[in-house]
Amino acid sequence: MRYMSQHEYAVTKAQDAMKKSQTEALVLSLGVNCYYFTGVSKLPSERLLMTIIPKKGSPVVITPAFEEEIVRNSSKIKLGSVKTWQEHENPYEVAKKAFSEIGTTGIVGMDGRFEYRFSKRLEQAMPDVRFELADDLISSLRIAKSMEELDLMKQACKCVAAGIKAGFESVAVGRTELECTKVIFEAITKAGGSSPSIGGLRSGAVTALPHGVASDKVIKKGEMILIDMAAAYKYYRGDMTRMAVVGEPTDKMKKVYKIVLDAQLKAIKTEKAGIEAQEVDRVARRVISDAGFGPNFTHRVGHGIGLETHEEPYIVEGNNLKLRPGMCHSIEPGIYLLEEWGIRIEDIVVVTGTGVEILSEGLYPKEEITVLP
Amino acid sequence: MRYMSQHEYAVTKAQDAMKKSQTEALVLSLGVNCYYFTGVSKLPSERLLMTIIPKKGSPVVITPAFEEEIVRNSSKIKLGSVKTWQEHENPYEVAKKAFSEIGTTGIVGMDGRFEYRFSKRLEQAMPDVRFELADDLISSLRIAKSMEELDLMKQACKCVAAGIKAGFESVAVGRTELECTKVIFEAITKAGGSSPSIGGLRSGAVTALPHGVASDKVIKKGEMILIDMAAAYKYYRGDMTRMAVVGEPTDKMKKVYKIVLDAQLKAIKTEKAGIEAQEVDRVARRVISDAGFGPNFTHRVGHGIGLETHEEPYIVEGNNLKLRPGMCHSIEPGIYLLEEWGIRIEDIVVVTGTGVEILSEGLYPKEEITVLP
Repeated sequence: MRYMSQHEYAVTKAQDAMKKSQTEALVLSLGVNCYYFTGVSKLPSERLLMTIIPKKGSPVVITPAFEEEIVRNSSKIKLGSVKTWQEHENPYEVAKKAFSEIGTTGIVGMDGRFEYRFSKRLEQAMPDVRFELADDLISSLRIAKSMEELDLMKQACKCVAAGIKAGFESVAVGRTELECTKVIFEAITKAGGSSPSIGGLRSGAVTALPHGVASDKVIKKGEMILIDMAAAYKYYRGDMTRMAVVGEPTDKMKKVYKIVLDAQLKAIKTEKAGIEAQEVDRVARRVISDAGFGPNFTHRVGHGIGLETHEEPYIVEGNNLKLRPGMCHSIEPGIYLLEEWGIRIEDIVVVTGTGVEILSEGLYPKEEITVLP
Repeated sequence: MRYMSQHEYAVTKAQDAMKKSQTEALVLSLGVNCYYFTGVSKLPSERLLMTIIPKKGSPVVITPAFEEEIVRNSSKIKLGSVKTWQEHENPYEVAKKAFSEIGTTGIVGMDGRFEYRFSKRLEQAMPDVRFELADDLISSLRIAKSMEELDLMKQACKCVAAGIKAGFESVAVGRTELECTKVIFEAITKAGGSSPSIGGLRSGAVTALPHGVASDKVIKKGEMILIDMAAAYKYYRGDMTRMAVVGEPTDKMKKVYKIVLDAQLKAIKTEKAGIEAQEVDRVARRVISDAGFGPNFTHRVGHGIGLETHEEPYIVEGNNLKLRPGMCHSIEPGIYLLEEWGIRIEDIVVVTGTGVEILSEGLYPKEEITVLP
């Protein structure tokens, strides 16, 4: 027998989900969702290129004519038809005709990653169709990872960890954050990873900004160093954060590090299938609040991860989603002391029947803050 | 006196344009448009972060609370107010309140680069507001470049040319496209450029795909080599394509190269302020059609360029936009022989009162196809 590919299986699951809803078709933007359902990995551009998954039958692609070859060659599923438009033609007329051939009269679910310049024009071309945000439906399929996907994400975490190791080793007083970040990127590439996130290595006061970015700032003695990196391995992403100090950490640094680590470990220990996402956030937050740093933990405790670095499930107060086996996300509490420094520790976990497995387990030590010469 | 910054000037121009229209406010997504109007250069994420430019008064930013510091530090304009939302709060309620404080009751122009997951939720939160695509208004401001912007784009073209030179020099039989592409990226970075496009160096039959991408394919003797690269210099982009052959080009290669070059040079010579965009496409296309390769020139002759590699004005049949001084775009005719090879030559021009200036002039020779050892 022949097994369905991951992409074929995703189409089947989407069609099953549609049968239970009023949604008659899904329209997918190029990018992560088009990749998930078809294997076509092109990035979106200003030209309309989209996939329609009808409730029944094979997916239809609408593409610029000169891209047809690339779409057909890279598709990993059986396409129903490929409708092309020439440079001087109106692609929305081609889309309208495709929808009319499919026979869509009711609700069409639209990929939330579509840009408004496309979605608005699709809506205008088809005023009788009711377009609705399909992110819940799409996310319900993508949220629980298969063993195949988990393997790729473990590889991605390994690439990230290689980057973190090389990055810390490259730190020296007088070097710039960007120089060290280049070392991280190269190590990730060498390990087989791709598409590293932009954050890189940050030092000193910038570590107090959860989304700070590496700059040409020079690293100084005694400074806090934060490396938060995400990267892909065959489209699936890993993400980790580790901390170091150039020289001897102060007592305050050691104390805050211990609190953050304690918060992370307690959250990891709490988590298992059946508990609500927000409960994991609460456990970590309680540790940090009890230590007196509540106002300094300014973001949610985690984000889902898969084809995107940030996707469902979000581990945040207010999210009462019950976690299920296969769901993957970061656990990354932090304490940020503005104008001083910040500390965050991040690992990726997957929910299992009895608890969680840490995808980034043992890839880079975290028992104590790393001390750099 | 103090001159307005580029960003302040853009806000003023947008407000002038709104006064002549029914649009009462613009909402801008993070990314190119937010950068253009505020100088904030963060990339979009899954969290709502947007700028509202009201018809009168200072722009308002809605941001995750923990990003407030980054927004305030990186803004190059005077912000009216910064409205923050905490991780567990609904950002669309914050947006709704901001619109109500501004007093918007009519049409709001929405940035076409907003993702549907944001635009749909904004529409749902404010059913009384009529959201319309604001791309024409925004583009009417961005389309004609200032001298300051042109200088950056010339620098960007220089970075790209440095990449092309290094890329061709790195070619050797037995090397892979990706190995050579790495050399291109490094040369661009060394020249001060950033964010290189993904295309890189392509060889053999892949050159017949206008949007082919570098892979681990090994370069062979006698093959056609295409380098199409775009890159940024301080956010503004350059874009060039040059061709080479590994060894002696065949007569057919030489003949097709001459036709493409002739088409490009005639188009460049034709262009000046006042003619329609489509006329430039027609001139190049006529040369290629007259030579018998009409069906092999499968894309428009050019795209505008600035903060984005592809933006208005598009040089394509059907676009009767009259070109004006300061408008910048590529001229890049091509002939694609599927399963054999393709040839494209691309330069960036800016329209002047009397013709065009070539921003990439003299940066890499094109009189003949480059012959590599």
